[in-house]
Amino acid sequence: MASAPPNIVRAAYTELISTDLDMLGFVLTARDDDALYLRGCEETTHHSLVLRKGPEPAAACLAFRVWADSDLDAAEEWYGERGCRVERRPAGAMRGIGAAVRVEDPLGFTLEFFQATDRTERLLQRFELHHGAAIARIDHFNISVNDAPKAYDYYESLGFRCSETIEDEHRLYAAWMHRKPSVHDVAMTGGASPRLHHTGFFTPEAHHILRLCDLFGALEQQHHIERGPGRHGVSNAFYLYLRDYDGHRIEIYTSDYFTGDPDHEPYRWNVNDMRRRDFWGAAVVPSWYAESTPVLDLDGRIVPAIAIEPERSEVVVGADGFR
Amino acid sequence: MASAPPNIVRAAYTELISTDLDMLGFVLTARDDDALYLRGCEETTHHSLVLRKGPEPAAACLAFRVWADSDLDAAEEWYGERGCRVERRPAGAMRGIGAAVRVEDPLGFTLEFFQATDRTERLLQRFELHHGAAIARIDHFNISVNDAPKAYDYYESLGFRCSETIEDEHRLYAAWMHRKPSVHDVAMTGGASPRLHHTGFFTPEAHHILRLCDLFGALEQQHHIERGPGRHGVSNAFYLYLRDYDGHRIEIYTSDYFTGDPDHEPYRWNVNDMRRRDFWGAAVVPSWYAESTPVLDLDGRIVPAIAIEPERSEVVVGADGFR
Amino acid sequence: MASAPPNIVRAAYTELISTDLDMLGFVLTARDDDALYLRGCEETTHHSLVLRKGPEPAAACLAFRVWADSDLDAAEEWYGERGCRVERRPAGAMRGIGAAVRVEDPLGFTLEFFQATDRTERLLQRFELHHGAAIARIDHFNISVNDAPKAYDYYESLGFRCSETIEDEHRLYAAWMHRKPSVHDVAMTGGASPRLHHTGFFTPEAHHILRLCDLFGALEQQHHIERGPGRHGVSNAFYLYLRDYDGHRIEIYTSDYFTGDPDHEPYRWNVNDMRRRDFWGAAVVPSWYAESTPVLDLDGRIVPAIAIEPERSEVVVGADGFR
Amino acid sequence: MASAPPNIVRAAYTELISTDLDMLGFVLTARDDDALYLRGCEETTHHSLVLRKGPEPAAACLAFRVWADSDLDAAEEWYGERGCRVERRPAGAMRGIGAAVRVEDPLGFTLEFFQATDRTERLLQRFELHHGAAIARIDHFNISVNDAPKAYDYYESLGFRCSETIEDEHRLYAAWMHRKPSVHDVAMTGGASPRLHHTGFFTPEAHHILRLCDLFGALEQQHHIERGPGRHGVSNAFYLYLRDYDGHRIEIYTSDYFTGDPDHEPYRWNVNDMRRRDFWGAAVVPSWYAESTPVLDLDGRIVPAIAIEPERSEVVVGADGFR
Repeated sequence: MASAPPNIVRAAYTELISTDLDMLGFVLTARDDDALYLRGCEETTHHSLVLRKGPEPAAACLAFRVWADSDLDAAEEWYGERGCRVERRPAGAMRGIGAAVRVEDPLGFTLEFFQATDRTERLLQRFELHHGAAIARIDHFNISVNDAPKAYDYYESLGFRCSETIEDEHRLYAAWMHRKPSVHDVAMTGGASPRLHHTGFFTPEAHHILRLCDLFGALEQQHHIERGPGRHGVSNAFYLYLRDYDGHRIEIYTSDYFTGDPDHEPYRWNVNDMRRRDFWGAAVVPSWYAESTPVLDLDGRIVPAIAIEPERSEVVVGADGFR
Repeated sequence: MASAPPNIVRAAYTELISTDLDMLGFVLTARDDDALYLRGCEETTHHSLVLRKGPEPAAACLAFRVWADSDLDAAEEWYGERGCRVERRPAGAMRGIGAAVRVEDPLGFTLEFFQATDRTERLLQRFELHHGAAIARIDHFNISVNDAPKAYDYYESLGFRCSETIEDEHRLYAAWMHRKPSVHDVAMTGGASPRLHHTGFFTPEAHHILRLCDLFGALEQQHHIERGPGRHGVSNAFYLYLRDYDGHRIEIYTSDYFTGDPDHEPYRWNVNDMRRRDFWGAAVVPSWYAESTPVLDLDGRIVPAIAIEPERSEVVVGADGFR
Repeated sequence: MASAPPNIVRAAYTELISTDLDMLGFVLTARDDDALYLRGCEETTHHSLVLRKGPEPAAACLAFRVWADSDLDAAEEWYGERGCRVERRPAGAMRGIGAAVRVEDPLGFTLEFFQATDRTERLLQRFELHHGAAIARIDHFNISVNDAPKAYDYYESLGFRCSETIEDEHRLYAAWMHRKPSVHDVAMTGGASPRLHHTGFFTPEAHHILRLCDLFGALEQQHHIERGPGRHGVSNAFYLYLRDYDGHRIEIYTSDYFTGDPDHEPYRWNVNDMRRRDFWGAAVVPSWYAESTPVLDLDGRIVPAIAIEPERSEVVVGADGFR
Repeated sequence: MASAPPNIVRAAYTELISTDLDMLGFVLTARDDDALYLRGCEETTHHSLVLRKGPEPAAACLAFRVWADSDLDAAEEWYGERGCRVERRPAGAMRGIGAAVRVEDPLGFTLEFFQATDRTERLLQRFELHHGAAIARIDHFNISVNDAPKAYDYYESLGFRCSETIEDEHRLYAAWMHRKPSVHDVAMTGGASPRLHHTGFFTPEAHHILRLCDLFGALEQQHHIERGPGRHGVSNAFYLYLRDYDGHRIEIYTSDYFTGDPDHEPYRWNVNDMRRRDFWGAAVVPSWYAESTPVLDLDGRIVPAIAIEPERSEVVVGADGFR
């Protein structure tokens, strides 16, 4: 396995099989008969979230943007060497996206790598069009994994660096890993795998998140708020978790920190530190650990998930205030 | 002059002869062929700002709400004893407002006193309808006066208490006076008189004001921002001044303080303290002192304004950073 | 019972038998061998919170400020007519407070009425001294009552007006009542009575409250955060509840609204509206309903509390997300 | 000139010959007899600002962090090929910094390249130690140049990408260029050259900047506020400019955007768009264009500055509201 991994720039978009989430503050780039293509106010790519109608809720793929066209070849080779199923996709197979490579990765997730995307209008300063949480851009994927050390090694081999962990003297329970110099492009949460835990979107300031909560209350849709708002211990971000009608989870996230220095050291949280998941000590709600979104394989079939063993499970081992 | 003044509750609304201001974040209660009736998100009265089409920009009246119907009689008697022209107005003479008394007051302003108003829907928590600066409610009138001590004595005799002043060893230049226990319902700024300097509206937090500035920039309407945002020394409020196409000035204002204690003492600023008008030392723009809105008498004619003598003028005597 | 009630201006201070709460952002006016006298940054009165060492946690009194000296006589007479035990206290009986009247009121609480207080330095704009949540001023008392309609009638007879309620077709469960034109000086929460549920303090903006949470986390004192931050349905305020080592509860509170109009109508929440206690639907924690501070009689003895009947209890009847 | 440039990670620190700036919210890492070593709350490097006592105000160097030790050799070779004076410096020549290369660059500035630095305690979540503007980290250098196209070409050859420009049909007046995927590590402002215009530091949210203004007012140091707060058109950041007693300029800066995509296109502002320097149309103050900090050569002597020709000067050509 001598090939170099593709040069991944960042987490780029999620394709969900779902229903509408519009109130959150996304910009609608395009609409098909069966899909909405959404982006944040700051993004000039085609989309960072696709909501596609389908028979049952699922995540069809998690897409990473790569630096150059040649990184598609690199991705094909790198995953091929690992025995993964790989699929070349022509430009337009996903609306607004150029030629791409999709793979069924060693963890069981369908990932996409692409370089080219249709450019869209810069709405960063079109404040009159911002609404809801004024979502700026995609920030990260959080995946549910039943073997965190294995997931860690895989992403490290793909060129990701680690910013923070949750661990104890026995093992690693969760990790935050990045390509762009933020806290993460991918985080791993212990649970049935493969599943998508959530997709995180960045918004400029905490008051944008409070405003979103107010909107949910005003519209009597407050049951979509699953957890938060609060401050994470891990990442230091101010956060809110929302669930849509299909159970898909979205995090609205702001104010993490720069991680790009060559000697940046991971910050290690003990699994018994009550502040790691909420720095203010708020109890995590049980559904946040228990529920996540099934993922599809390259044929569009749900990949069976395998549960996590209790001793590997942060929710079993750690302190979270709800047991 | 033995009669008691009317029991004034608070500054209630301004009637401007003007064009549209809609972007600011007001709620539209009603619309006539020639007028818009606007209120803040928190107000359940009919309006706190009326914009009426007319031949030239002016302020038709400043309205105070009184506690009881009997206060209309009190107002009529109190102003009558002072030789002021007084006019009874039936319910509906102003849309949405009950029976009222209008007077040409000793300073030359047309004031209205009313108790009854049509009730409107409470939109305080209809966050989905809030926009712009999410204006909550009217806060105060600021009037241009050429004799601040005289204006002070008149409002004191009407039952107003003083929260702050600008003065030096020679004289009083400006004062903030209140009925409700905030910094002011009426403030006096030195200048040609009678003129309306501005009407102030309250918004919940500073970021609502920053958002409004962003909107003005996004719409290339930034020339309507005259001064601010900044922190006032007087009142401690975070502020922004806007001018409409007719030159009418609106202040968006937040975070002053409680003044209702029986022994609350006025806070006295020296006219040479650069921080009194902007606590951060930002230069006041010349137009802010020089320009204000003509007022109408009870017959709808503009009242001629008399200039202020230089030695009474804060802009001549004081420190403001622009000379 | 012909006498008029005293002219109460507002909720003025709480005297707690307790230990230290300093981190919150109070200003220390004075310190005795056995007591701390604390106030908010905006207050120029002597204190709005007294923490006095004692054998067991309790609230010694809730103090209201009255408008005039003559209101002390009015209070004595008004409570005397109701058969309440009344005690005259000379100036200085409470440090920093003038002559006062203390009563054991019809609900079993010890109240104080005073007009005179030592003046303290205005720190409103001494931003370099603000810390923690930059607490501005006392806002309200929340008392635990086992008969809300009785408490409502009593406070109404004392001259309080109602801003909001929680009720259903059967009965009243909770009410917010005010003298100053904010949502409340006194609120009633169903529970064992007489007990003090909490004292509320006002801070300028929501980010001051988030900052306080961050401080608690940083100092590993996050277990003092009992509930919130969040937006109340009732009052629309942004809130946080803290408990000290003795279980005394403090609310940090911001952004309610003006209630001073003569025709202001109470806003009535149904006890089954999940949003009334938290507009974003966050579950209320059980301790918030179950626990409160014993109160002392005029002899300093704890007044036995009587439990609330289940059918009168909001926590039994209503929707709060934790059962 | 065949060699590759060093792999620069980001702007890393400024060494100023100066007096104290402490109030801003920096963390003091170390103190010598003649220098303060300061960093932001988020930084675990030794410092991002050095203030060293000296005979006259100047900027001794602008330091960039590089990815690997080998980049020191690359820097030496790359600048050597361009005929620049280059100096190797042993570890500790600057306290807290490892081996370094300093150069007198083609624009006349003294730059430093280093990889190794002493690690310091992570204070990101030690909120009890945050004060003032809670400065998080260094963001960028802004240099005064009299030939913007030349400066642009030089930085482009060093591997910087352009995020935004100010230009017209005749020429380029200013540019923002980055290595880390933010709006900039280096910006160029037209003026006498070589001079340092300012160093920019990142803070989490706008209210941290407002808080800093309040502190300056409270301490009667408001004359140190030169410009702002406001929203930049370029970068979309919320900003404040401060000047110390020596005239050194610091920018406090928050909320720009991600620029790391492979096809990220520069956003081009016309020099006559009043919003480019302040999105809300606030007039730029004349000193902001006219004044900047002299720079030192490798021998510590001030480099003579050459004025900008009027037709190359944005302040002469453009719209800024103060002429």
